[in-house]
Amino acid sequence: MSSSVAHRPFDLGAALLRARAASWKLAECNRSALLQQVADALLNAAQEILEANASDVEGARAAGVRDALIDRLALSRDRLAAMAAAVRQIAELPDPLGRVLDGWQHPNGMSIRQITVPFGVVGVVYESRPNVTVDAFALTFKAGSAAVLRGSADALASNRALVRAMRAALPSELRDALQLIDDPDRARVSELLSARGAVDLVIPRGGAGLIEHVVSHAKVPVIETGVGNCHLYVHEDADPALALALLIDGKVRRPGVCNALESLLLHRGLAAAWLPHAAGALAEHGVTLHGCEATLALLQGREGVVAASEEDYATEYLGPHLAVRLVDGLDEALAHIRRFGSQHSEAIATASQQVARRFQTEVDAAAVYVNASTRFTDGFEFGFGAELGISTQKLHARGPMGLRALVTSKYLIEGDGQVRG
Amino acid sequence: MSSSVAHRPFDLGAALLRARAASWKLAECNRSALLQQVADALLNAAQEILEANASDVEGARAAGVRDALIDRLALSRDRLAAMAAAVRQIAELPDPLGRVLDGWQHPNGMSIRQITVPFGVVGVVYESRPNVTVDAFALTFKAGSAAVLRGSADALASNRALVRAMRAALPSELRDALQLIDDPDRARVSELLSARGAVDLVIPRGGAGLIEHVVSHAKVPVIETGVGNCHLYVHEDADPALALALLIDGKVRRPGVCNALESLLLHRGLAAAWLPHAAGALAEHGVTLHGCEATLALLQGREGVVAASEEDYATEYLGPHLAVRLVDGLDEALAHIRRFGSQHSEAIATASQQVARRFQTEVDAAAVYVNASTRFTDGFEFGFGAELGISTQKLHARGPMGLRALVTSKYLIEGDGQVRG
Repeated sequence: MSSSVAHRPFDLGAALLRARAASWKLAECNRSALLQQVADALLNAAQEILEANASDVEGARAAGVRDALIDRLALSRDRLAAMAAAVRQIAELPDPLGRVLDGWQHPNGMSIRQITVPFGVVGVVYESRPNVTVDAFALTFKAGSAAVLRGSADALASNRALVRAMRAALPSELRDALQLIDDPDRARVSELLSARGAVDLVIPRGGAGLIEHVVSHAKVPVIETGVGNCHLYVHEDADPALALALLIDGKVRRPGVCNALESLLLHRGLAAAWLPHAAGALAEHGVTLHGCEATLALLQGREGVVAASEEDYATEYLGPHLAVRLVDGLDEALAHIRRFGSQHSEAIATASQQVARRFQTEVDAAAVYVNASTRFTDGFEFGFGAELGISTQKLHARGPMGLRALVTSKYLIEGDGQVRG
Repeated sequence: MSSSVAHRPFDLGAALLRARAASWKLAECNRSALLQQVADALLNAAQEILEANASDVEGARAAGVRDALIDRLALSRDRLAAMAAAVRQIAELPDPLGRVLDGWQHPNGMSIRQITVPFGVVGVVYESRPNVTVDAFALTFKAGSAAVLRGSADALASNRALVRAMRAALPSELRDALQLIDDPDRARVSELLSARGAVDLVIPRGGAGLIEHVVSHAKVPVIETGVGNCHLYVHEDADPALALALLIDGKVRRPGVCNALESLLLHRGLAAAWLPHAAGALAEHGVTLHGCEATLALLQGREGVVAASEEDYATEYLGPHLAVRLVDGLDEALAHIRRFGSQHSEAIATASQQVARRFQTEVDAAAVYVNASTRFTDGFEFGFGAELGISTQKLHARGPMGLRALVTSKYLIEGDGQVRG
């Protein structure tokens, strides 16, 4: 690193303490109004942010980073405006704090209420996109917690400029509620993941490698996000046009996202009539099919059709590839999903209420669709107004996470001298 | 170990797979009726269970285990009857599965519902008490998940007998929903904690050392339970008799439990009038006070009063000791609790609504009491009908955990061909 601070390691412990102290003041301040100021500040600092980003982009190009990744890294006035707009949208969401989740009276007369409260200090570890810096802060702040952010080394100059602008928009006593881990050394990530008591929650956002690293090394609570090996099972009685629409939507529109389809499971009874037609539609979109033997037999001689290995069924392609397997029926489809699914989103096309019901009951995934596209697994589509990611774990939050996933609760008990004796 | 299987290591991977396969059948069976059979089976196998337990007790005595721990380990006909009764009580609780947590219609007409579903495979790691073997299985089974249990080596014969009896009460296709890790080697615990994908949740139940070990080594989701360094803050305006009642209840009735008091924070303005009286009452119960300088000055010459170190304020005594510190007011009390509290249960005695409100808002703990005893932090007292432990983490469950903490959720989406486009 050429930065002048490269040889002074970032003091994460001190940053976490500052974040904690600032967090105590967040529940009571006007977080919505402050986020509007943050959005203004991002627009006002556009020049500085874009210059910093240009230097990141230049560095990444010089380092031979792929064009697709550079596109994720690069900002423009339009992208910056969209980021500010996202902050305003988060500002306007209902306050997730102070909601009464439950309440009752103990037989001895004490009142007991369970209310939502902030986590305290939340860490977010992510990859190149600088918009995550803004989103993650805005969501965490709206939820009343301090944010400790760790982006990628590629985006360090951009993230510094973004964080500088946002911090400056906050009153001085709240500034430390936003901390950037301004040090590309991986050791800081390990420290964050071990900081029991100092950080209340760490959320990884990024590819499978990043998530695996965080989940495996964390000694602090973590919410696992994002890997989606999603299937569409087309039952024998499915409406052919409906099934094709779900397939094209799931595979073709945005193949790089976690709720896109990666595998098609097709009932043998429908295969001869439907598969050649579906394969043709996918071929028009440049999708390569990785088929089982029966699939290959049906699609003999076509281009863009290759043999599937076990590996294919386990792969999240995130690109123009689809694994295809013919099955004898629902049981075989369920067994396949159990074996290869990542418990993200799974869909069935069927006309049968009974088959649909069994599929929804037996598939263990965050979102289980009947006659609808897996692409709807998304915080905005679910009406949460914002999204932190898609939880693929079962603890605390499952599926699209909105602000409600970023708060915890406590019990408030009031009495007039009750003892247990 | 003298057992004939001691040299064949327990195959945890295979046990987890069997547990998973059995778990698929749990949501749809009559779990309440089966638990009633389990309770019958425990009573019918009393002879065998008590004999096995006697051999565990003998072994522990020979190994020089302390009497208090032997008391935890020892079973009797009465204790076994109480364990069976607890199973019946869990059997009769409302089913935590299939509850609709939320539901709405997407603007495009799809219906979206969030419903409670089982975790799948739940591990429980615990210490000597054999009743946990029964409780943990009954709760997990009622919640529709398979239980993989790891008790202490001291109780292995008892746990084997209990598990044999309970498994025999289940239909053969459900038996594998109860697995005992029948191997005292610690390596099996490490394997369990690393079994990502094979176990969905691990809950440690036991002392601080066990919990610390599990939380530090787990690569699978964990719910941290139990450590309670609980405070009572007596404000200047507190009713003296009420404050004394909370103090005695919290410190004296059952000092060995996590919701017992460990520290008293006392407003200086009340100290001269109240503390000598309170100290006398505690002395009658054999409680040693570890006081700050001002406390020592007020209680000069009394027996059972010693100087407190910083260490004392951080200690969960779980016995007849109480740290005492005089404070200038609410702010100092809040700062002390922030520094030394374990986020379990905290209480204030005060006549002021404003002071009570600030205490409840600013104290970060699972349960915050006004004019009531910390001893109420308990699943039964909270009306949950059963308890898995007290969560001291903020993710998923906080405070007393009933059956609701043992389930997760999924989204069910139904449409008629909706695509995102």
